[in-house]
Amino acid sequence: MLQLPLRASFYIFKSFAQPSLASITKTRAFSPSTPANMKLLYPTSLVLDPAKITGFPTLTLHPYDVKSPTLPSEHHDAEILVTWANSKDNLTYAVKNLKDLKWIQSLAAGPNDVLSAGFDASKVKITTGSGLHDKTVAEHALGLLLNAARRFYEMRDYQLQGKWPGHLGGPQPDREKGTFRTLRDARVTIWGFGNIAKSLTPHLVALGATVKGLARSKGVRDGIEVFGEDSLEDILKETDALVMILPGDASTKHALNRERLGYLPNHAWVVNVGRGTSIDEDALFEALEGEQIGGAALDVFETEPLPEGNKLYGAKNLILSPHAAGGRPQGAEELIVENLRKFLGGQELKNII
Amino acid sequence: MLQLPLRASFYIFKSFAQPSLASITKTRAFSPSTPANMKLLYPTSLVLDPAKITGFPTLTLHPYDVKSPTLPSEHHDAEILVTWANSKDNLTYAVKNLKDLKWIQSLAAGPNDVLSAGFDASKVKITTGSGLHDKTVAEHALGLLLNAARRFYEMRDYQLQGKWPGHLGGPQPDREKGTFRTLRDARVTIWGFGNIAKSLTPHLVALGATVKGLARSKGVRDGIEVFGEDSLEDILKETDALVMILPGDASTKHALNRERLGYLPNHAWVVNVGRGTSIDEDALFEALEGEQIGGAALDVFETEPLPEGNKLYGAKNLILSPHAAGGRPQGAEELIVENLRKFLGGQELKNII
Ligand SMILES: NC(=O)c1ccc[n+]([C@@H]2O[C@H](COP(=O)([O-])OP(=O)(O)OC[C@H]3O[C@@H](n4cnc5c(N)ncnc54)[C@H](OP(=O)(O)O)[C@@H]3O)[C@@H](O)[C@H]2O)c1
Ligand SMILES: NC(=O)c1ccc[n+]([C@@H]2O[C@H](COP(=O)([O-])OP(=O)(O)OC[C@H]3O[C@@H](n4cnc5c(N)ncnc54)[C@H](OP(=O)(O)O)[C@@H]3O)[C@@H](O)[C@H]2O)c1
Repeated sequence: MLQLPLRASFYIFKSFAQPSLASITKTRAFSPSTPANMKLLYPTSLVLDPAKITGFPTLTLHPYDVKSPTLPSEHHDAEILVTWANSKDNLTYAVKNLKDLKWIQSLAAGPNDVLSAGFDASKVKITTGSGLHDKTVAEHALGLLLNAARRFYEMRDYQLQGKWPGHLGGPQPDREKGTFRTLRDARVTIWGFGNIAKSLTPHLVALGATVKGLARSKGVRDGIEVFGEDSLEDILKETDALVMILPGDASTKHALNRERLGYLPNHAWVVNVGRGTSIDEDALFEALEGEQIGGAALDVFETEPLPEGNKLYGAKNLILSPHAAGGRPQGAEELIVENLRKFLGGQELKNII
Repeated sequence: MLQLPLRASFYIFKSFAQPSLASITKTRAFSPSTPANMKLLYPTSLVLDPAKITGFPTLTLHPYDVKSPTLPSEHHDAEILVTWANSKDNLTYAVKNLKDLKWIQSLAAGPNDVLSAGFDASKVKITTGSGLHDKTVAEHALGLLLNAARRFYEMRDYQLQGKWPGHLGGPQPDREKGTFRTLRDARVTIWGFGNIAKSLTPHLVALGATVKGLARSKGVRDGIEVFGEDSLEDILKETDALVMILPGDASTKHALNRERLGYLPNHAWVVNVGRGTSIDEDALFEALEGEQIGGAALDVFETEPLPEGNKLYGAKNLILSPHAAGGRPQGAEELIVENLRKFLGGQELKNII
């Protein structure tokens, strides 16, 4: 257990209703409360530095094992639970036993595990780890794009057969029309232009790519023109590489379907680091086998792990990555601290669902 | 044949001796010469835009086939030859038949083909294409680094067996000590800190890497601290990824030998996009097999193509790329124009060897 230093000037609001400015000022100036202890349980499934979560004198921080089927009985009164890579058992146990739970801070970008464990979002606030994965997912997406453009997967196939892939080396045409062999002067479309896209874009631009976005609402974001669904066909027709970073909800189900795959030029690559459900995998398989597109680099799949025997393993020009883009939350402490402040201040939490 | 527009005010010096300033001024001001035609032969092995090579009224540009064993007899009086991916035959023919040749502009970074064809560098000026490959080689090196860090080669091996490489995906430790799994906070050392390194570095820094350089002379270049050979051991010991971009001359032969491989931490990767001769491949093979280093991503080899049956094909954690980093000169016209100006002005040419 880690007891954080007490600062007398600190205050919290026991009720989580939004306080008026007057009441904040009054509480602060005249009657610093001596609030009841509040417990936050944090996971040991990643390296978290509790010393970074300071400035909350009434808060105690307790590590817990996310893979255990139970939680220590002395912590059943915890009000805040931080989750990362918890077992199903563990979350189900938490639903049943953490009766005082008010807020779950997931460190995952999409906290499907928390939701499907049965927490009632009308009683317990649930916040996601959106933003904690931007840099890692952006790096991975960049790597997949370069793997595709530079044909590392094909080189590997030759290497494993003890053969020199001479056709991929030596003098090459430079930025030939109708090819995707480099990011320089490539037209990259990012579908789902949120946090991760904003982190990825500068790297692509620095390598000489022309980046466009697709999202629900249009407009210029971070200097990049983002288009709406009405421009989808036109944009896909002018795309050398399509990077999909869509969330996995009902609105994005099979966003890339047979018809839309058909808009892409024959040399275009599809990279997906969002959610597998946003691509119709049967249609994609056909497009790959029929060489209607250049290839696909997928980090996410409709079913994960991709079942043995699935035809995608052997699809032409398919690069498979096992949901490896993120999985390493960065800056979790900062998000927890920001949300603790808001939680205690009765404000709307960041990344609330 | 492409005859460029004649500008009366233009002048050239028929002799290529360095003229005195007085003679330049005099020639220019009082007697614009009507110089003899001068022929430049340019290769059709890449897309060159002759219209960009303007402003030289006495110059005529003639395309030629670099794979032909001869050159058209009407162009045997050419004074300038631009080479790219020429056949051995073609260059040997040029040595014997282009009797007026004064300057060869190779578009390769290392014009070994031109030198070994037998041109006499004391009679014919030879300039390299150094600088034309910076962006392409930098992009490839970045791709190889991400392939290594993100383990795309290992994912491929699983995919080919129809297996999900689950250990490489899902929740992962973030930037664990003694690993190379991301460029973020990785310590990258670039050995050979020239043009290509300067083009690569900003991408690495943007991804969060700490970059140091190794070269013949020390000092800060483009904001990066570059160390000399006296710091080699210390630097290699603190390296997560070593990127070698050394030229292939006598001074760099087996620069990375058994002893120096031994300085690298066990998790460190070696990426080589310079020349194969700078690594002792036997020592590297042993280091890989003995897991004394994390892996190696090689674009260049002591013998290319790497002969069938060579043990490196199957070495542990070795990524093979078939000299594919460059091979696409970019900005050749600008280099030719710059050097034409200097050539006609009797000045020292850029990239002269
Ligand atoms: N592979 C991995 O390891 C990994 C790791 C982390 C996250 N992810 C996935 O990546 C997704 C995106 O993350 P993020 O942090 O960038 O999310 P974000 O900031 O919420 O951005 C989501 C973007 O998707 C757009 N969008 C949502 N529904 C859409 C629809 N029906 N049609 C078109 N555009 C739509 C949004 O459009 P507006 O901007 O117009 O609202 C927004 O631009 C996450 O939801 C998660 O599933 C994967
Ligand atoms: N894989 C490919 O497809 C490909 C394509 C293009 C080029 N290349 C190779 O890449 C090489 C480098 O290209 P570049 O344009 O970056 O060359 P560059 O600008 O001439 O830089 C060469 C660098 O190497 C350093 N160096 C030379 N000899 C050294 C030695 N004995 N010990 C330590 N450092 C030494 C130089 O040190 P100082 O700065 O102190 O002089 C300089 O920093 C080329 O020579 C070529 O072989 C490969």
